[in-house]
Amino acid sequence: MSILDKLTAIQHHHQSRLCVGLDTDITKIPNHLRDSDKGLLKFNLGIIEATAAHASAYKFNFAFYEQYGKRGMKVLRKSLEAVPKGIITIADAKRGDIGNTSTAYAKAVFEDMNFDAITVSPYMGRDSVEPFLQYEDKLVFVLALTSNPGSTDFQHIISDKKPLYRHVIEKSMTWEGKSALGFVVGATHPKELGEIREYAPTNVFLIPGIGSQGGDIAATMQANGSGPAIVNVSRGIIYASTGHDFQEKAQQLTIYFQKEIGM
Amino acid sequence: MSILDKLTAIQHHHQSRLCVGLDTDITKIPNHLRDSDKGLLKFNLGIIEATAAHASAYKFNFAFYEQYGKRGMKVLRKSLEAVPKGIITIADAKRGDIGNTSTAYAKAVFEDMNFDAITVSPYMGRDSVEPFLQYEDKLVFVLALTSNPGSTDFQHIISDKKPLYRHVIEKSMTWEGKSALGFVVGATHPKELGEIREYAPTNVFLIPGIGSQGGDIAATMQANGSGPAIVNVSRGIIYASTGHDFQEKAQQLTIYFQKEIGM
Repeated sequence: MSILDKLTAIQHHHQSRLCVGLDTDITKIPNHLRDSDKGLLKFNLGIIEATAAHASAYKFNFAFYEQYGKRGMKVLRKSLEAVPKGIITIADAKRGDIGNTSTAYAKAVFEDMNFDAITVSPYMGRDSVEPFLQYEDKLVFVLALTSNPGSTDFQHIISDKKPLYRHVIEKSMTWEGKSALGFVVGATHPKELGEIREYAPTNVFLIPGIGSQGGDIAATMQANGSGPAIVNVSRGIIYASTGHDFQEKAQQLTIYFQKEIGM
Repeated sequence: MSILDKLTAIQHHHQSRLCVGLDTDITKIPNHLRDSDKGLLKFNLGIIEATAAHASAYKFNFAFYEQYGKRGMKVLRKSLEAVPKGIITIADAKRGDIGNTSTAYAKAVFEDMNFDAITVSPYMGRDSVEPFLQYEDKLVFVLALTSNPGSTDFQHIISDKKPLYRHVIEKSMTWEGKSALGFVVGATHPKELGEIREYAPTNVFLIPGIGSQGGDIAATMQANGSGPAIVNVSRGIIYASTGHDFQEKAQQLTIYFQKEIGM
């Protein structure tokens, strides 16, 4: 099954375009799990169990696991194994390096860890992204217009009457590969997201910025129209409660976001 | 000792501005080490032993270790421990994400692994880079003009009569932090490197692109002038021989590059 068919299938089956972002931080998980050696893993398994029926994807931001060293990477691998088959797994690693190095990163994420998708940074250009695009049945999200405050520093720089992020999108659409090409487009810029949809109508958008980052869900989904999208919420779901009811509260918020985002 | 004093001290002590890049790849190391479970580590320890007296830094490109999963990360940590005290260690990880995530990456590299320096990608702007700059006595290399073919795709885009990499350099110099701010400027663009030196005269440049990538050493060092610089060679040194003489050959090439680069 192609990765796009897999995405469509799970989104219809779960009636959800929501992605739950597992930005797991020892200082924010429930108190009773903080002191346990297995607390991080128990937290992730608990969140996955409580939310899987309402999600179409899980996004693992590598930073949160790398900060705990070997222990963190073990939690990442074990959590990844716990994601039910059919749900899309996204390595939010924002990788990108010279050609032979990007090849090694792609191998790490797509072969060693077997993720369905990855986020990559475009700053180094074609040979830094193409190694990721060589994999069949994978989804590669190029950073275009991100959701953070610093996105205005360089991504909006105008050249030839177009912002940098538009150059990134248009140029990357000319690159060769077998993977599906998607873009990271933040919910904090709904107007620009709508404009991007016009010149990238069929690419999958990974949309962060809902929840803690304050993006407007209705405006974002209207701007996106019928284009394929995965909408991520991390902190706004997983840290709903620091008590023993963390699964229940996370599930309630997952259902809330699933409905608000709609199909 | 400040990180810049540490850099100056080792460069004078070893009379070297050379950085050896440990881009360790199982398919390229000597034949007799390929089949051994500890081959990757033995190779790195052998290279470090043979080259340390002539190097001022070691650069670990994370991709090469991540591609081997847990085993690779263990090799990275053990190799890092083997670098003699006083020599600068660079995490070539090209990280960068929204603020709270970059904080986690900084923690991984500067606290958990205790590297002296890191490379970061500027595409996401200020809040993606500042968390790295919060550390005292660390060196943060922002990607400016990279050495790879794809560097021309976006880094040379002109806005307001300046290329994107100049916007990156000028803006990042206004960001706050306690670390030393450096830039990655490839040896494959000596003319531009000389121009960058004019508006960034005292920042440390991490200069890749010598060796396999074909950068001209004399032109590069002339363009750099007296500015602080660390010049990296990876494949051009470490894969000098696939035989039992790999240490000897790597040492010969290290001395060759040390002299060509000069002080």
